Amino acid sequence: MRTEISTLGEFGLIRHLTEGIELKNESSRYGIGDDAAVLSYPADREILMTTDLLMEGVHFDLTYVPLKHLGYKSAVVNFSDIYAMNGTPRQITVSLGVSKRFSVEDMEALYAGIRLACEDYGVDIVGGDTTSSYTGLTISITCIGDVERGKAVYRNGAQETDLICVSGDLGAAYMGLQLLEREKLAMKDAGGDVQPDFAGKEYLLERQLKPEARRDIVERLRQAGVQPTAMMDISDGLSSELLHICTQSHVGCRIYEEHIPLDYQTAVMAEELNMNVTTCALNGGEDYELLFTVPIADHEKVAEMEGVKLIGHITKAELGCALITRDGQEFELKAQGWNPLKEGPEASPSTSVEK
Amino acid sequence: MRTEISTLGEFGLIRHLTEGIELKNESSRYGIGDDAAVLSYPADREILMTTDLLMEGVHFDLTYVPLKHLGYKSAVVNFSDIYAMNGTPRQITVSLGVSKRFSVEDMEALYAGIRLACEDYGVDIVGGDTTSSYTGLTISITCIGDVERGKAVYRNGAQETDLICVSGDLGAAYMGLQLLEREKLAMKDAGGDVQPDFAGKEYLLERQLKPEARRDIVERLRQAGVQPTAMMDISDGLSSELLHICTQSHVGCRIYEEHIPLDYQTAVMAEELNMNVTTCALNGGEDYELLFTVPIADHEKVAEMEGVKLIGHITKAELGCALITRDGQEFELKAQGWNPLKEGPEASPSTSVEK
Repeated sequence: MRTEISTLGEFGLIRHLTEGIELKNESSRYGIGDDAAVLSYPADREILMTTDLLMEGVHFDLTYVPLKHLGYKSAVVNFSDIYAMNGTPRQITVSLGVSKRFSVEDMEALYAGIRLACEDYGVDIVGGDTTSSYTGLTISITCIGDVERGKAVYRNGAQETDLICVSGDLGAAYMGLQLLEREKLAMKDAGGDVQPDFAGKEYLLERQLKPEARRDIVERLRQAGVQPTAMMDISDGLSSELLHICTQSHVGCRIYEEHIPLDYQTAVMAEELNMNVTTCALNGGEDYELLFTVPIADHEKVAEMEGVKLIGHITKAELGCALITRDGQEFELKAQGWNPLKEGPEASPSTSVEK
Repeated sequence: MRTEISTLGEFGLIRHLTEGIELKNESSRYGIGDDAAVLSYPADREILMTTDLLMEGVHFDLTYVPLKHLGYKSAVVNFSDIYAMNGTPRQITVSLGVSKRFSVEDMEALYAGIRLACEDYGVDIVGGDTTSSYTGLTISITCIGDVERGKAVYRNGAQETDLICVSGDLGAAYMGLQLLEREKLAMKDAGGDVQPDFAGKEYLLERQLKPEARRDIVERLRQAGVQPTAMMDISDGLSSELLHICTQSHVGCRIYEEHIPLDYQTAVMAEELNMNVTTCALNGGEDYELLFTVPIADHEKVAEMEGVKLIGHITKAELGCALITRDGQEFELKAQGWNPLKEGPEASPSTSVEK
């Protein structure tokens, strides 16, 4: 079934999509339906604000990304930014630019994903804007969160001798993207006759299509009484993010190849694509894991923390930022980031780390 | 001179455009440069949040809108939503989607407009996102403001016998749009040989290209000790907005054609285009004036307030919403809104008010 959006109009569509939304957070006083949402936070909280603009063709490819997954991911990447400040996401506004190609049912699927993410993470949809667009789909989400006054964690607080930690494992979302792109090409070549083969690679797909924000890690750190000195989420690749922390904190770092957490499926897929798996972990984007530094005194607490891996330490700025390979060589970390890697599987360690 | 955006890259462009930004509001604790901005509000304030998504071809036409004006307007329309809640805008995030057609200089012009608006209204730019786009320009701005606890004014508080007020005058921005569209066609027909003729119509252009938010009215009401019972800004036309207030407040209304404030230039232009000027005032969009209701006890205060006009009163819901024409006829108000009017100058009273 396909219902044209024009049958509902802008106000009708918003009303339809946001039907039955109930505000769950005490800080959400008034949601959709006025010139602005009204929020109320107690004086002992600071407010966090982050925003993301996602455009079809640049950030997502609807030939293989289901709209519900896209909605979920669009919300979660914003939550991830709030957790990366040591906060808790509370409210979002959702703006959509939609071309005639999309139906009411498409928007329902997209919104179902956004609403599911909000439910899972306890976030309220308090406003937004829906407009027509000449081409494709545009999604702009702004998220508000809160944090105990004075407990926000910035990128600029890393100190010499601090330990560098990451949550989860890295590179899988990027491998998932490679897999989807490969199957898309294969399908095209076969004229749509074959079914894509994702057996044994489910984890990679999940990481790419339905990433989660690491609320659990932020909670675990809080429970353990560990206040990170610096933190950010890994959306553009470990290398790039670590350089942000080091530059803004005026420090250097050493990380160890052997300690970078990898999933088995990531390693297998990299092998298949003839790519260096460390390069994928360093520069593959969209992991949405947390990268953080803690004082060395917290070594024991983080060393035994589930889902957290120690990968190195902070040094004086003069020592620069380097990766120590398995065979003991030292390579300077470069901010390769996500985009260059997108060019294709020819990426190799030489393009990402330089002696 | 034309500098390609690719020479700077995403991070470089953001850095370049936001260079020298200083936070002026006490509530702005940390701006651009981390996963999220950090804001801090005292306990006696409530927080307001609004967002707008503007897309090239839908919301603006760069053949006659200078980028600096577009930037200014994009910010101001958000401020207007905050004032319409009886608040004060404090922070914005700015997300831009930009195709290759645009240069660094174009983005400088756009940002100069946004920064000028922020300076004029005392608002801080605390974050954003800049990304490439396949087509055209996309601007998504989210604005945070504050209001004394309990003083936010919603759309749903209008009461029977309340007076209906509007600020400024109506229909001019819509006439400005008509003028620009007419000159665009004329230029095309003449092959670019003639200069557009805007003499005597400067006010219309200004209203369309560089609207202002009515901070002054909100301050004047506060100083006079008038707390509106309902308020919103007029972005989709007086008719449509008044119906929002009446529907949400479960009341009816009577407004009087003779009291609707019009500028002389608006009337002249409507005459030239063979349009009914009342229709333009009722349904022309983008006025960004304030529409509000006050208790009848405040009659004297608002009657003598500069820039405020009384146009009618709130009634029981059963009486419906109607316009009383100069000759005493009663027409039901219809939510014609902005879009249908955009179709062209064939709009007439019969399409906007029905007996």
